[in-house]
Amino acid sequence: MHYKLALVGFGNVGKAFARLLLRKREALERQFGLTFSVTGIATAHHGIAIQPNGIALEDILKLAEQGDLHLEEHSAWPVNSVDDFVRSVPADVLFENSPVNHESGQPAIEYLRVALSRGMHAVTANKGPLVHAYRELTSLAGQVGKRFMFESSVMDGAPIFSLFRGPLPLAELRGFMGILNSCTNLLLERMESGESFEQAVQYAQSIGIAETDPSADIDGWDAAIKVAALSTVLIGVALLPQQVAREGIRGITPQMVQEARQSGKRWKLVCRARREGNSLLAQVKPEQVEATSPLYAIGGTSSYVQFELDTLPGLGIVEGNPGPETTAYGLLADFINAIRGA
Amino acid sequence: MHYKLALVGFGNVGKAFARLLLRKREALERQFGLTFSVTGIATAHHGIAIQPNGIALEDILKLAEQGDLHLEEHSAWPVNSVDDFVRSVPADVLFENSPVNHESGQPAIEYLRVALSRGMHAVTANKGPLVHAYRELTSLAGQVGKRFMFESSVMDGAPIFSLFRGPLPLAELRGFMGILNSCTNLLLERMESGESFEQAVQYAQSIGIAETDPSADIDGWDAAIKVAALSTVLIGVALLPQQVAREGIRGITPQMVQEARQSGKRWKLVCRARREGNSLLAQVKPEQVEATSPLYAIGGTSSYVQFELDTLPGLGIVEGNPGPETTAYGLLADFINAIRGA
Repeated sequence: MHYKLALVGFGNVGKAFARLLLRKREALERQFGLTFSVTGIATAHHGIAIQPNGIALEDILKLAEQGDLHLEEHSAWPVNSVDDFVRSVPADVLFENSPVNHESGQPAIEYLRVALSRGMHAVTANKGPLVHAYRELTSLAGQVGKRFMFESSVMDGAPIFSLFRGPLPLAELRGFMGILNSCTNLLLERMESGESFEQAVQYAQSIGIAETDPSADIDGWDAAIKVAALSTVLIGVALLPQQVAREGIRGITPQMVQEARQSGKRWKLVCRARREGNSLLAQVKPEQVEATSPLYAIGGTSSYVQFELDTLPGLGIVEGNPGPETTAYGLLADFINAIRGA
Repeated sequence: MHYKLALVGFGNVGKAFARLLLRKREALERQFGLTFSVTGIATAHHGIAIQPNGIALEDILKLAEQGDLHLEEHSAWPVNSVDDFVRSVPADVLFENSPVNHESGQPAIEYLRVALSRGMHAVTANKGPLVHAYRELTSLAGQVGKRFMFESSVMDGAPIFSLFRGPLPLAELRGFMGILNSCTNLLLERMESGESFEQAVQYAQSIGIAETDPSADIDGWDAAIKVAALSTVLIGVALLPQQVAREGIRGITPQMVQEARQSGKRWKLVCRARREGNSLLAQVKPEQVEATSPLYAIGGTSSYVQFELDTLPGLGIVEGNPGPETTAYGLLADFINAIRGA
């Protein structure tokens, strides 16, 4: 079975995904009988290419590494916009990795909608569409007999959504807690080692963890959107990020961080959601955690979620040392699982 | 689809499994179209019953709770031994929960072998058969088109083996580390709170965590057998418990535990396995861990494993607050996954 793949976004994650596809090419064929070609790549700043016979991925990666990528030079025909790209690329699977839009989930939702309508599987690492259009896109996917997949949108490539689709039959999710935002976790840790808030932010920006405007992380929006995503998909209670009681880390001073440390504690931005009767209580809030909490050891950009199930009272998942490669793996797993119906 | 289930062992896990089957009866039918009857239960000390039309599970559970269970009184015909039971019970799935035999895996291996040969799915919570006969039983299962399942044999019902069968396609396991023996973890924690080794053992025995002869736990055999099981199944390197470098906790005195505690550390019995070239280095050894280690917060009878994959460098799984109910859930998940081929 040969699959034509189209990529929207070719930043760190897109490139890592391309490298992973190349590295796993043989194993994909040997274990799953899958071969692939990448028939299109669309970016915001490096052009767009459609190549029905397959783009030379190794060459494109080399050019990207050299900072010399002009995708339009590799296109079989001119493509005006990402929108046009999604409507015309000849592909079986769309991988959507555009920047997240917390407010509306656009334009990613539209890309995924078009891809599904055209009979493609739609895979995204983007939380926006998940929170703002999970039901619509899942139902559309069902209508066309394809899949809407989003493993990498929460905790990078750690298996969260696939865990609940597969290995946990009949388990009833009552709630969860954890650390879901890498950026604030890193900032708090840097402040523990003596940095000011501004220094910590600068460091996080320098390694690509914080954005130029880091307020979505710092004010707890990213964590809230992830709580909403997990609640919507795993608990089945549609929740918007705005409905999550939210407090970021702006109120946590380096002095508070140091004082906590001296008493053997750490400040963490903790996410919690719990079913109470027919409603769901969800919050994002800084908490001091003790060394005996599983949250204490979650350092740097690692993340953690602990599920309370009727059948397993404390099932925790740690994602340690994440990077673009781990996010890329979530996309690959989604691709394979979409094809094999898992 | 109706399934006839046979149970070997009706101790805490067997009874919890029976209760779980009853509690999930409706959901099993609604979500998976599965109905069931329990056609046989075999125990070492409370008799054996075969009832082709189905045993009245609620009644049996009540009698067991009253300490008044004589299974032979509920049997359609006399059954002389567990061996005879396994050879004659009319069933589609055998759940094997007899006590573990570290040295040979018997008689559990023979029960599972007979069950598979008779065309039944074979499910066990028992590490013995896994370590001593994984390949044979898996291959036999393949020949007869049935499944050999063992989720509950390591970390109770936490999804470990099913995680690698499903959500982690093409991920290559390089090694793992963790805390896999509940009993020693509890003993070390009790010593932290001031108890002597003997007091800690007495406590663990009183709550059913340590056996009358607790040496299999204390000397690291149970941990070693679990390392061997994970290595054999997940890394694909057949390893016997005897091949795991093994040191138990007899050398760890209450004084050492207290000293570690005063310097912010904890003694833990740590399991490690790592592929090095074509060989596998595996060990069980007490280590002092710092508060920044994910092992530090693993308290009481909880357990933890962290996998190093080529695609996910630090994927950790915590099993918190386990009990017979969590082990029972692993058996239920195995049953469902055997039927649906997951």
